[in-house]
Amino acid sequence: MIGSINHIAIAVPDIRAAMAQWQERVGAEISEIQTLPEHGVHVAFIKAENGKVELLEPIDENSPIAKFLEKNADGGMHHICFDVEDLIASRDKLIAAGGRVLGSDEPRIGAHGKPVIFIHPKDLSGTLIELQQA
Amino acid sequence: MIGSINHIAIAVPDIRAAMAQWQERVGAEISEIQTLPEHGVHVAFIKAENGKVELLEPIDENSPIAKFLEKNADGGMHHICFDVEDLIASRDKLIAAGGRVLGSDEPRIGAHGKPVIFIHPKDLSGTLIELQQA
Repeated sequence: MIGSINHIAIAVPDIRAAMAQWQERVGAEISEIQTLPEHGVHVAFIKAENGKVELLEPIDENSPIAKFLEKNADGGMHHICFDVEDLIASRDKLIAAGGRVLGSDEPRIGAHGKPVIFIHPKDLSGTLIELQQA
Repeated sequence: MIGSINHIAIAVPDIRAAMAQWQERVGAEISEIQTLPEHGVHVAFIKAENGKVELLEPIDENSPIAKFLEKNADGGMHHICFDVEDLIASRDKLIAAGGRVLGSDEPRIGAHGKPVIFIHPKDLSGTLIELQQA
């Protein structure tokens, strides 16, 4: 049921400093910064040929990634997002197999304007996985 | 200079248990397990349309991922590997911009039989990045 890897998200304490490092040290091509107030983040996209890595900086201490950065001061890999053809079917399969959705079981609108759920990291290799309606 | 995202690696304490979770909970299609004694890991590939996620289980306590699992008992995202066209040029650019290669600066042969370097996580958003000769 997994489609494409939509993105890999890296939380960073300072997005401009991170962008400079990625550009200077590995020659990354990076988008402009977008601010998504409803998601509590500034975001910029590192472009690869087959996908993208998102750099996320919290807007403030209420951001969903603020706590992650308290534990990982340098930043770090935060989640992987996969596209799925049918998010509701994917959610139901997850729950039927003993997996948990973070927060409400109802999909919410993610940072890309599409319905998403996040899977509890304890239920999938200690890794935060986002499923997004393709 | 970044080409494609070659793979995302997730370290897991028990690869068979992890495979079962990914198959049952998100419908992942996964390869057979391969054992790479010279890299200290058992590996299986979760197939996505545009790339792959590798599940890595340490062979023993000398495995390069054993310490990571001591700190992350459930498993977790370990590194991202990008293909690059010219690994030596990428390495030289990294070093010139103040980035550090883990271990020796000389590329070694990675798990896919191609030359690789790993970049110090402190030098790139707290994230372990592997660069692989395309």
